Amino acid sequence: MTYTVAVVGATGNVGRAMLSILAERNFPAARVVPLASERSVGRKVSFGDRDLTVDDLATYDFSGTDIVLSSPGAKVSATFAPHAAAAGAVVIDNTSHFRMHEGVPLVVPEVNPDAALAHKGIIANPNCSTIQMVVALAPIHRAAGVKRVVVCTYQSVSGSGKSAMDELYRQTKAVYENATVPPQVYAKPIAFNVLPHIDVFLDSGMTKEEWKMVAETQKILDPAIKVCASCARVPAFIGHAEYINVELSASLSVDEARSLWRAAPGCAVVDLDSGEDLDAPYITPKDAQGEDPVYISRVRADDSVEHGLNFWCVADNLRKGAALNAVQIAELLVAQGALGKGARS
Amino acid sequence: MTYTVAVVGATGNVGRAMLSILAERNFPAARVVPLASERSVGRKVSFGDRDLTVDDLATYDFSGTDIVLSSPGAKVSATFAPHAAAAGAVVIDNTSHFRMHEGVPLVVPEVNPDAALAHKGIIANPNCSTIQMVVALAPIHRAAGVKRVVVCTYQSVSGSGKSAMDELYRQTKAVYENATVPPQVYAKPIAFNVLPHIDVFLDSGMTKEEWKMVAETQKILDPAIKVCASCARVPAFIGHAEYINVELSASLSVDEARSLWRAAPGCAVVDLDSGEDLDAPYITPKDAQGEDPVYISRVRADDSVEHGLNFWCVADNLRKGAALNAVQIAELLVAQGALGKGARS
Repeated sequence: MTYTVAVVGATGNVGRAMLSILAERNFPAARVVPLASERSVGRKVSFGDRDLTVDDLATYDFSGTDIVLSSPGAKVSATFAPHAAAAGAVVIDNTSHFRMHEGVPLVVPEVNPDAALAHKGIIANPNCSTIQMVVALAPIHRAAGVKRVVVCTYQSVSGSGKSAMDELYRQTKAVYENATVPPQVYAKPIAFNVLPHIDVFLDSGMTKEEWKMVAETQKILDPAIKVCASCARVPAFIGHAEYINVELSASLSVDEARSLWRAAPGCAVVDLDSGEDLDAPYITPKDAQGEDPVYISRVRADDSVEHGLNFWCVADNLRKGAALNAVQIAELLVAQGALGKGARS
Repeated sequence: MTYTVAVVGATGNVGRAMLSILAERNFPAARVVPLASERSVGRKVSFGDRDLTVDDLATYDFSGTDIVLSSPGAKVSATFAPHAAAAGAVVIDNTSHFRMHEGVPLVVPEVNPDAALAHKGIIANPNCSTIQMVVALAPIHRAAGVKRVVVCTYQSVSGSGKSAMDELYRQTKAVYENATVPPQVYAKPIAFNVLPHIDVFLDSGMTKEEWKMVAETQKILDPAIKVCASCARVPAFIGHAEYINVELSASLSVDEARSLWRAAPGCAVVDLDSGEDLDAPYITPKDAQGEDPVYISRVRADDSVEHGLNFWCVADNLRKGAALNAVQIAELLVAQGALGKGARS
């Protein structure tokens, strides 16, 4: 059985990654339709070896489309997704709009695949920083019960879109030309700097990105897990890193934790026990670019609290943090026979 | 009264900052002698408006020198500092060599000034990341008792010396020239990347930088404080940032904490309550370059633990994190009449 797939926001960072991952993984697509706003209509985007022509989201008829992978602005999803779902498509949406809606599953296939089946036409793809964290937390939570998480992020600019990548590129180049490129995407210069600011500030003093990491982790993994998240933007193009400190309910040694991760789907461990032929016993954001796994390094006991564990976690934010996770959800629906004509009741 | 001051490692990042800060602050110096290894002898270094000529550390006679500000390699300090102290000088040493030695005070003037008086000729200047953290922790520790700290750092390359700044500069430039500058100072590329690796790895899995933040905080501030530190190098030239999560013994509101910091020596708060004329309600490493204060931003309650508080802390690692702190220790000794002929018994 093959499916008709639409990709909304097909010209953006995540949309392009969705197209390339659908092709890489030989998703059973009879037809792939790239969609975007009017100003991108007619542009070409790559799908494997082929070029596809971008169609107009505003006028597209979703009847006959089985699945929609969506990563436009949040406001765009709010409007088109219910409409596409009503026409019979299943929308896997990467924006923040539906994530915390009751009745909308928030899914990471390695963590809560069963949640996907309960959808009513829309499935939300979690925030990039949350996805890699819950993939890493899930195996140790099952084994030893995660009580509290203190996480600090090192997030690349690609999470803010192509204009942010351009801002970092041009602002950095300007340093070598004695010129200045003033910040536009960000509130302060990002070149050779660090900004403790991702998404808007909330009344609590948290940024919305930090709030997402708390709320989404609780929705996906376990509402009892307490989370304190602190997010920062660093001058890297692709790849998000996180230092994650966890307080567990039971003892778990460093070796036990590494074994759990080495056996867990979607995880890869590169650490001090990985052998001596490494340049260095850890993965960096640059290393993770274009890669699928959530990498775990720097695993160590934290003696400052009972059953404490500390580690470093890196993933490609455009792939596992966004596009790959969405495609994996689509694959999950295919495997469950939950796509295509008559699959929805 | 005026003093003879020697600066050891005068051509390095920190040595040059020591000279410039001595001049800026009109330290009562009758004579300032820049010292370095043989290969730098005869080079000129700036001291205020004047140029001084670098002398040879190996052959310098420390008798008659009242105070030595020292920032060479750790092995160099191990050898020369006891020798200089025996000749009657007080050595304020920025290397890690003496910091944890019993009988060597480890001093941050805003935090434990009295410790300085107990010196036996050598006073240690703490690690850069530790200094800014204890300056920030001290006022809230006095008010509400810090029980546990989970800190993640975002450290600039200047902490690794001039060669590291050069590596970041040239490696980044190479990206624009389709060239490659392989890592030499660091184990992996630092341009547009993040490295979870500062100083060497210890058997515990901690890096030595992380261990320093634990051990030095306990020595300077309170041995009962539990600390978990996770350090990372980011592609910034100057300025270290830290997200600091604290568990307090008693309740302390965000407003109370900000008030304590606003009244505390060496601290400055820039936060959501700082007024609406800011580009953004926080300080970044770039903003802190060349500045003296330890900046505190992003203060918020952490509801994931009882009496939890979370904040962002930034300082110029070459100034407050190294050279300024050393000069402040010297000023403390001057104020205490603990320098000069006959001051040591």
